[in-house]
Amino acid sequence: MATAGKVIKCKAAVAWEYGKPLVTEEIEVAPPEADEVRIKIVATALCHTDLYHLFEGMETELFPTILGHESAGIVESVGSSVTEFQPGDKVIPLFINQCRECRFCRSPKTNLCDKGPIGAHDKLAFEKSRITCKGKKVLPFMGIGSFSEYVLMKQIAVAKIDPAAPLDKVCLIGCAISTGFGAAVNTAKVEAGSTCAVFGLGAVGLAAVMGCKFAGAERIIAVDTNPKRAETAKVFGATDFVNPKDQNKPIHQVLAEMTNGGVDYSFECVGNVEVMRSALESCNPGWGVSVIVGWTNRHDFAARPIQLIVGRTWKGSLFGGFKSKDGVPEMVRAYLQKKIKVDEFITHSKTLAQVNEGFELMKSGQRHVYGITPSSLLHCKSYLGLNDKTKSKIVFCFCSSIRTVLNVSSE
Amino acid sequence: MATAGKVIKCKAAVAWEYGKPLVTEEIEVAPPEADEVRIKIVATALCHTDLYHLFEGMETELFPTILGHESAGIVESVGSSVTEFQPGDKVIPLFINQCRECRFCRSPKTNLCDKGPIGAHDKLAFEKSRITCKGKKVLPFMGIGSFSEYVLMKQIAVAKIDPAAPLDKVCLIGCAISTGFGAAVNTAKVEAGSTCAVFGLGAVGLAAVMGCKFAGAERIIAVDTNPKRAETAKVFGATDFVNPKDQNKPIHQVLAEMTNGGVDYSFECVGNVEVMRSALESCNPGWGVSVIVGWTNRHDFAARPIQLIVGRTWKGSLFGGFKSKDGVPEMVRAYLQKKIKVDEFITHSKTLAQVNEGFELMKSGQRHVYGITPSSLLHCKSYLGLNDKTKSKIVFCFCSSIRTVLNVSSE
Repeated sequence: MATAGKVIKCKAAVAWEYGKPLVTEEIEVAPPEADEVRIKIVATALCHTDLYHLFEGMETELFPTILGHESAGIVESVGSSVTEFQPGDKVIPLFINQCRECRFCRSPKTNLCDKGPIGAHDKLAFEKSRITCKGKKVLPFMGIGSFSEYVLMKQIAVAKIDPAAPLDKVCLIGCAISTGFGAAVNTAKVEAGSTCAVFGLGAVGLAAVMGCKFAGAERIIAVDTNPKRAETAKVFGATDFVNPKDQNKPIHQVLAEMTNGGVDYSFECVGNVEVMRSALESCNPGWGVSVIVGWTNRHDFAARPIQLIVGRTWKGSLFGGFKSKDGVPEMVRAYLQKKIKVDEFITHSKTLAQVNEGFELMKSGQRHVYGITPSSLLHCKSYLGLNDKTKSKIVFCFCSSIRTVLNVSSE
Repeated sequence: MATAGKVIKCKAAVAWEYGKPLVTEEIEVAPPEADEVRIKIVATALCHTDLYHLFEGMETELFPTILGHESAGIVESVGSSVTEFQPGDKVIPLFINQCRECRFCRSPKTNLCDKGPIGAHDKLAFEKSRITCKGKKVLPFMGIGSFSEYVLMKQIAVAKIDPAAPLDKVCLIGCAISTGFGAAVNTAKVEAGSTCAVFGLGAVGLAAVMGCKFAGAERIIAVDTNPKRAETAKVFGATDFVNPKDQNKPIHQVLAEMTNGGVDYSFECVGNVEVMRSALESCNPGWGVSVIVGWTNRHDFAARPIQLIVGRTWKGSLFGGFKSKDGVPEMVRAYLQKKIKVDEFITHSKTLAQVNEGFELMKSGQRHVYGITPSSLLHCKSYLGLNDKTKSKIVFCFCSSIRTVLNVSSE
């Protein structure tokens, strides 16, 4: 391509400051180094983790940044030692490396990779960034920064996908769908005939519902405080819907009564430590497995030791346990073969310039009260019946969107 | 026997009140009901859980009680529908039922049993007790109450063992040894060649070390603040000993540095929620499994979500995951075949009348400071390096005993 080997000037939505709206700017993206791939982003979706970093996280020094990490694009040019990719390849950028050589990559038990941190989102990554705007370095969020026309990726963090894949759809496989689906299929290893509960019906939770269904679960109880999600959950395979606000007892008691003592598997897809506790307590004491999928880093999760001692297991799931380069092309193939749903997650389409509207859709309906993070679709102690004293802190966060996709470039 | 069908008057050590020394009293033990077995206790050991109930637990209303639950004896008489046992059988009383019929018993995933609660130690059990002293009902602790010449057990809570077994030794299989050994072998499923860490080297911790060794672990790091336990731990298979007090950084960092990022399996055998956190954080992020074995019910355990999300698993173990009636005879057989050690756990022998001296041995060396439960062999934040502010709360609990066995009756 004509741009190969040159700095590309292009548009990106830059987050200059914590808590402030994004601004469309012209940025400069350096040519790829030997082991890198430069990608033209075709589509990127908005994930709650982007919102978390902008409005809820504590890393206020990691700005300016370009958010966005759930995307798909086309290889523009490659570094001198790259043989796996060629210009024109359809790809999905990854926030977990897979070098295929380190002890983690060689172990079937993990999807971590020793070559660099997850998401590479730290001060060191900031110093190394080769993306600039108005002469300043800009940090690509989670090592990607896909709210941009071009991104620069290490080849160990790029997955080549089927050329038939529609990029404005499969971009969701870069985060939410793999995360939720894999939490059920890879991390919990849901068994056929089992009973599951999924807390929080955003894109990750709905993908977890889909994963439970795919694994052959007989009963899938979807839990959310937003009554509109009842119908949506059924689309992905939920058999029951419970709104904690309609209950006069703690949600874990409600689920225990519905399931003769507790579900076999539960999934926390909210990112709230009280919901993590409820999800654990909703499991069958003898063999229940609860998986933390939602992200928060502001509080400890906690429970009484007896909750585990009797026989429950508490796990967590990062990118659904998928080895990133292996898993993403597989998931894309599963979509093309109609084994998993993707289109049904997308509720809104926007342009890159409309990114702030996308955030508003994600936040709309949300009432924000002191002391509690808005990462709380499901929230909170009070209407989970755990503690009346915290009623004043209730947050209802009814996202109007499930996934908004930004159409960045044409394919 | 001459006593069959009659009330037996015998000696027992009665705990009349929370926090007070035990008193040797004459008690009356009713004849067995249809599905019950009355057992002459030959030997019983002192477990930390007895001490916990007497001095640390919150259930001050569950007195008078007869403590003791790690014991062995001989069947004296059986109820009318009992066919599995006969007078003269050597048995170990169990604090977990195994009815072999309920959904739990039929599942290979759990050792719970639907027929009654674990240990049956509640108000209902108090009302149903058929042991009396001075006209008052006395609650048998954990459904056993083996600091007594005779106990009354449901047949689903009794394991028949090899007649060749020395009861003053195998009594330890009734709790500590099965609990620690099984946590490694059954719950964590330690793999050959792996690296393990065991926190707290009381009888349960030493049995966990033995379980790791039995499972083929290549490296077993024993962690305790009592330097005398270094040699003891080697007897059971430990390859390394770390005293957190000798370190100038948090113990999980020390272990991570020793093991290229963390151990494969860790075991908390203390009953302290801060140690539970350290044990989890000591695990390899990608695949580490941490098992809570120690007992406390006074505080929540806690960690940051990321600790699980990256790939760790947090489990708990109750009686080492053994189905009680199946597991105990197996463990006794393993001992008779010299596959596991038992004698090496026993540091002291006493008579039933000397039970309070046994408690003193367990408590000796312990400094007790406000705000922290004395269930803390290893304790605590400060010398684990987590929080200097809590230094004033340090408890050093160096038990002089590992296991004291009370010789109650002759075989």
